Amino acid sequence: MAREDLYDDPVFFQRYSQMDRSREGLAGAGEWEALEPLLPDLRGKRMLDLGCGYGWHCVWAAEHGASAVTGVDLSERMLAVAREKSAAFPQIVYLRSAIEDVSFPPESFDLVFSSLALHYLSSFQAFLALVRSCLRPGGDLVFSVEHPVFTAAGPQEWIYGLDGTPLPFPVDRYFDEGQRTARFLDAPVVKYHRTLTTYLDGLLTGGFRLLRVVEPQPPQRLLDRPGMRDELRRPMMLLVAARLETGAAERRTR
Amino acid sequence: MAREDLYDDPVFFQRYSQMDRSREGLAGAGEWEALEPLLPDLRGKRMLDLGCGYGWHCVWAAEHGASAVTGVDLSERMLAVAREKSAAFPQIVYLRSAIEDVSFPPESFDLVFSSLALHYLSSFQAFLALVRSCLRPGGDLVFSVEHPVFTAAGPQEWIYGLDGTPLPFPVDRYFDEGQRTARFLDAPVVKYHRTLTTYLDGLLTGGFRLLRVVEPQPPQRLLDRPGMRDELRRPMMLLVAARLETGAAERRTR
Repeated sequence: MAREDLYDDPVFFQRYSQMDRSREGLAGAGEWEALEPLLPDLRGKRMLDLGCGYGWHCVWAAEHGASAVTGVDLSERMLAVAREKSAAFPQIVYLRSAIEDVSFPPESFDLVFSSLALHYLSSFQAFLALVRSCLRPGGDLVFSVEHPVFTAAGPQEWIYGLDGTPLPFPVDRYFDEGQRTARFLDAPVVKYHRTLTTYLDGLLTGGFRLLRVVEPQPPQRLLDRPGMRDELRRPMMLLVAARLETGAAERRTR
Repeated sequence: MAREDLYDDPVFFQRYSQMDRSREGLAGAGEWEALEPLLPDLRGKRMLDLGCGYGWHCVWAAEHGASAVTGVDLSERMLAVAREKSAAFPQIVYLRSAIEDVSFPPESFDLVFSSLALHYLSSFQAFLALVRSCLRPGGDLVFSVEHPVFTAAGPQEWIYGLDGTPLPFPVDRYFDEGQRTARFLDAPVVKYHRTLTTYLDGLLTGGFRLLRVVEPQPPQRLLDRPGMRDELRRPMMLLVAARLETGAAERRTR
């Protein structure tokens, strides 16, 4: 099942809604302590959130002074929840669309943000072109994405010993970029593996200055949750903060 | 056996001298095609090579116009070979020292370079302090290092199937930075594992601007050498080009 349908599948959506990060929001997301310091001061800023899901980050931005927040997601079920959570914030607007299909006038935003959505996109270059087309020069791009170590082999599973304990995490097909099918919440999910080079050198050679590159570790307060200690054994996410260089913005051609 | 003694051990040194990269120099190094474009124009520049080994990169720099090249290595056997290779280049000077122990006056160099040596150092922060102490502001830092994926678990070995073919490459203890003992040329070698965050975010928050981040793939011309195709399955090296920001230089305190 592709990203397009998955989050509108009632069974999958029900399972997703039971996850810590769905029930508890940012406090239930193990990476939030590492991600928050990468975000710029949002007071008076215009933010675009690509793959906004339940809208947790849109609400956070509005609470921290953002003057206008645009959340984009493909799932109507996700956006229904997001709209409900955002009722008190008229500066938040939600848009139902695939990330690949949106376009905005030049310099529409001061910050483009994306949480754990880019590994669903087939082209990181196309994503960067989208950002350059609508972010103001000097504006920020902050995103989290599944780590290339986590996406390389495909199944996103530990190797298990005969007694059921996880052995080392397998890396394979690292330089073979493209589709992988993993299981998430008991459903097959299509994701795209890319190397670190594609992400980081893609930014550096694509008009962006890197500000921060962080692989988050689970915070102490969550270490006793099931599986969390194993997250110290492999990097699962990559957090990046970058800035669009002056002169690098482009009109999108599509 | 620690890095300090290893390359002066006669048996190990003999084995090392038989490697492709020892016999053929840069042409025998699978990463050279990816590393060369990361180096700045060297004409008239002063270069420091930390962990220079046989001096291949020092000679290359002199051949490409560097006005002064300083090569540092701890192994007298390595430096003896390097001096022999460099006889035609009076602008190259070799210095026998541990990288941790060298110091130079401020702004001594336009480029600090290091090839596959930093994973022998216990502290990347101390290395960055050394670079800031002797590189001119606006000068370049270019290095290759064993990839965190390659150094994390420790043994640097594939998992093998019952028929002897390599299964996925194991990642483990990723966020547990520090000493690892691997085998290299049939000898135990102590190396230091660090995360990508420590390398890249260490540079970004330590006064450097990232210019390029590249994980090299083996070039087509070497793919038929033993084991080379497996190098497409995991990242083994990380290449980084960075620039010291103006105002970030420091006098070294030690």
